[in-house]
Amino acid sequence: MATQAEVQHPRNRKAFGWAARDSSGILSPFNFSTRETGEKDVRFKVLYCGICHSDLHMVKNEWGVSTYPLVPGHEIVGVVTEVGNKVEKFKVGDKVGVGCLVWSCGSCQSCSDNLENYCPKLILTYGFKYVDGTITYGGYSDSMVADEHFVVRIPQALPLDAAAPLLCAGITVYSPLRYFGLDKPGLHVGVVGLGGLGHLAVKFAKAFGAKVTVISTSPNKKKEAIQHLGADSFVVSREPDQMQAAMGSLDGIIDTVSAVHPLLPLIGLLKSHGKLVLVGVPEKPLELPVFPLISGRKIVAGSNIGGLKETQEMIDFAAQHNVKPDIEVIPMDYVNTAMERLHKADVKYRFVIDIGNTLNPTS
Amino acid sequence: MATQAEVQHPRNRKAFGWAARDSSGILSPFNFSTRETGEKDVRFKVLYCGICHSDLHMVKNEWGVSTYPLVPGHEIVGVVTEVGNKVEKFKVGDKVGVGCLVWSCGSCQSCSDNLENYCPKLILTYGFKYVDGTITYGGYSDSMVADEHFVVRIPQALPLDAAAPLLCAGITVYSPLRYFGLDKPGLHVGVVGLGGLGHLAVKFAKAFGAKVTVISTSPNKKKEAIQHLGADSFVVSREPDQMQAAMGSLDGIIDTVSAVHPLLPLIGLLKSHGKLVLVGVPEKPLELPVFPLISGRKIVAGSNIGGLKETQEMIDFAAQHNVKPDIEVIPMDYVNTAMERLHKADVKYRFVIDIGNTLNPTS
Repeated sequence: MATQAEVQHPRNRKAFGWAARDSSGILSPFNFSTRETGEKDVRFKVLYCGICHSDLHMVKNEWGVSTYPLVPGHEIVGVVTEVGNKVEKFKVGDKVGVGCLVWSCGSCQSCSDNLENYCPKLILTYGFKYVDGTITYGGYSDSMVADEHFVVRIPQALPLDAAAPLLCAGITVYSPLRYFGLDKPGLHVGVVGLGGLGHLAVKFAKAFGAKVTVISTSPNKKKEAIQHLGADSFVVSREPDQMQAAMGSLDGIIDTVSAVHPLLPLIGLLKSHGKLVLVGVPEKPLELPVFPLISGRKIVAGSNIGGLKETQEMIDFAAQHNVKPDIEVIPMDYVNTAMERLHKADVKYRFVIDIGNTLNPTS
Repeated sequence: MATQAEVQHPRNRKAFGWAARDSSGILSPFNFSTRETGEKDVRFKVLYCGICHSDLHMVKNEWGVSTYPLVPGHEIVGVVTEVGNKVEKFKVGDKVGVGCLVWSCGSCQSCSDNLENYCPKLILTYGFKYVDGTITYGGYSDSMVADEHFVVRIPQALPLDAAAPLLCAGITVYSPLRYFGLDKPGLHVGVVGLGGLGHLAVKFAKAFGAKVTVISTSPNKKKEAIQHLGADSFVVSREPDQMQAAMGSLDGIIDTVSAVHPLLPLIGLLKSHGKLVLVGVPEKPLELPVFPLISGRKIVAGSNIGGLKETQEMIDFAAQHNVKPDIEVIPMDYVNTAMERLHKADVKYRFVIDIGNTLNPTS
């Protein structure tokens, strides 16, 4: 399969990255090719790429949809090296990013509403079949080519390494805060889980002017959450007294946990008319108690990344309000160790691969 | 206990109704008393009272909260016989109704927002302890006394017998259609379950201008749903082909089923951003699949009756748009048979007791 992948654009551009070859998930150097730069395409040299938890699922085929070789990465930032002759928004030298999507149909209701992320025909940045029949490869690689509609501009005020995780983790929490009306000053917002998504949810909610409570199973995260991330309070979800004291106090919750976990205590934390928004995907269904939903007209909802217009808005907002993820920048050849540490939640809070300086074709 | 109940307002008004004495749920004649008409109280002669499915649960103590003797009934319509000297909205002779609530705190956020139904201190129309320490008795009785805030006016255009079920069944489906934005012409609304609540959900959704699909386990309800109730289409939930054909077609669903049932197929019927609103209360938690929620930014919510302002609005809307429940009017002494038939869902669609003509103190 590697050979086939390497020649799928035989006349076109050589590219180099790191790929998983099978469900062991071990990544190793990989030569491939990209399509030629089309008339609406932006080509850019990748400088940084975040490691999303979904990359870990995908390299190990834990969702059963992976094909190999698989080049992960959908938090991609770099500098434009070439643009097609019909590109209007970007020029060579611009600092740009690509998130989870590289194509959508452009004609469905979701696309018309700038919600390309809910287009039923969307094509993800890696591991999907593109419209030309080739497989998409992600940002653990030296170059990306994408239709300009799916490229966002990175504002000057944002460091490029810190900008990368905003393209998936950032928009994943920003979008539901906005859509579900949790972006108003004075609201009280809960954040469940303090990882890549959760720590950004705290920062965005604070930037919107909310009072923020972190709900976590780990008491030892309290100091970090309050002193470093700026949360107003911290509740240990395994402590019934703490949970009881916080009952009915929250306007909304962003729940970033992707393991199976009980919803009843979280629904209890909501005020009447409160909203519990799930952005993590547990493998099995969760138990939904109905009476507590009905008696308080509460909502349990899901949300999945965001559209391109909102992603640009989010990244501009982040630049303006100095919302930046806490990152650990790593060299490319550390990626397998980073994946192991990510599996153990041993990172504060996002690994970002320094592609520009450490992805070496001879490595 | 019966004796005690009969003398709890020893100096006050004699009243007569039918009560359950124990969890057999069998109702029989019952003498009791009401408080004197207070300065903000409206006293009215009960003419009609609907039989809500929750009455059946309560007389049998199926929710574990019943106290006996229990006089059910919270879909109560009648004519004013006396008003307190500070009553402003009503006068003797007015046609009025009382629904599920007779008191709320008046000072919490929900009360301030005209959402008395979500007040944490609310007092239900029967089986609750009132502020004076006495037990509330419902509308299976000859007279009611209630603070005018909890009394609604029945418009001239509505027959009094048909108005009764609007006070619980009607507002239970009207309120979520409004709150969740399913009241816009041209939307496509699903209704799950075709009982007392469901058949009114069809009628209100049609009155709002929606296209309405009924989802039911019973194929033999199709003709009735479409030809009689005015639904636009009918899907048998046990027929995978029919469910598949309707996938992604609904803007929202009012789910009136109170048995445990799968949510996954219903979530599948929703368009992206669609809303599944539960108004029935299954005894056990339901299985909530998270991925389908997230991938379409869908919502599962609950809703519980409505506030007094909205209840008045609903009943005025019903009068204006000729929304009336289909009822079977019965005499008081048929109530135990009616309860048995209700248990078997053998009613189209709501029993209403003709209290005014058939509640006989000698019966």
